[in-house]
Amino acid sequence: MSTAAYADAPRLYSFAAGDMGAWAIMRVDTIVGAPLARAARLAFAPGEPAAGAAWALRGFTSNARYVTRTERAALTASQAPLARAEARRAALIPIRKSPAWWALAQDERRAIMEDASRHIAIGLEYLPAIARQLHHCRDLGEPFDFLTWFEFAPEHEAQFDELVARLRASEEWAYVDREVDLRLVHQPPNS
Amino acid sequence: MSTAAYADAPRLYSFAAGDMGAWAIMRVDTIVGAPLARAARLAFAPGEPAAGAAWALRGFTSNARYVTRTERAALTASQAPLARAEARRAALIPIRKSPAWWALAQDERRAIMEDASRHIAIGLEYLPAIARQLHHCRDLGEPFDFLTWFEFAPEHEAQFDELVARLRASEEWAYVDREVDLRLVHQPPNS
Repeated sequence: MSTAAYADAPRLYSFAAGDMGAWAIMRVDTIVGAPLARAARLAFAPGEPAAGAAWALRGFTSNARYVTRTERAALTASQAPLARAEARRAALIPIRKSPAWWALAQDERRAIMEDASRHIAIGLEYLPAIARQLHHCRDLGEPFDFLTWFEFAPEHEAQFDELVARLRASEEWAYVDREVDLRLVHQPPNS
Repeated sequence: MSTAAYADAPRLYSFAAGDMGAWAIMRVDTIVGAPLARAARLAFAPGEPAAGAAWALRGFTSNARYVTRTERAALTASQAPLARAEARRAALIPIRKSPAWWALAQDERRAIMEDASRHIAIGLEYLPAIARQLHHCRDLGEPFDFLTWFEFAPEHEAQFDELVARLRASEEWAYVDREVDLRLVHQPPNS
């Protein structure tokens, strides 16, 4: 099988907490459900996690499951990439949704997520300041369903707080039964 | 982490071709794209494939990505489970969809799949005779995107041929760039 044919294929990423990694963990807030163990640093890298982490979470990037063509055009026009030099702050927000969410059909999930909760529209208001990448992990049997990674400049952290507060107040978030909010500062070990 | 909380979680399955397994491979037709190597038997089991297979494909069951509440109610009312005693025939149809398909947004994929191609409605016509289980594998970096497993009684094989012919004639199938059709007979090694 040629690798080239899959060059744009979805990718597995790992978030490993411990003594390694370019991100210093500044704060870990358990929003709902079981906490994650504290650690000093977080390593975010493609592939399986290195051995010896305090904990590790894995997820894959994939095609968007809800975004329409119109919404995608708006997102693409505004969004910023990861790894911008000025984006020295990050957040990792692992969430799990309840069995009630996963028992819903596609049209019902979409109605709650966007028609009622305006998840996509709210996120759009914070572009390009807040860069984001969603990783799916429910299908891997992981303890969370989604790992969302956000990067922003220090002066945009208050905006980021507002963004997550608005989403947590939405109808969609009534289906979130586990959520942890990790805040990080880019601090490569040799810096 | 309690296992019970994930009792209904998506599951990894493997299809391993070689000398082992309860299904004798009767026919392998390459519909489009690269073929799969011939083998005598196929083992279909949960988890990673056993070592030594001629080839193995892995996929996970997951939540449905397109089916609406109304469609799901119709499917649930009619569908039959796998492993019925009379369902001695099976088909494994691995497909890969083109980059053009994966570049579409959710509403565009849905419009082609159901509004134009009637994929769900056509499948419904063949229930309960044809039992099916979809396995997703694009997100695992596998050579196919989907592995669909079908089980039916020998007298329903002609109906099954009609079902796949109708789907292959649909607009959706213009986006299928690799497809292999394996036909199998249930023949446990010690039978």
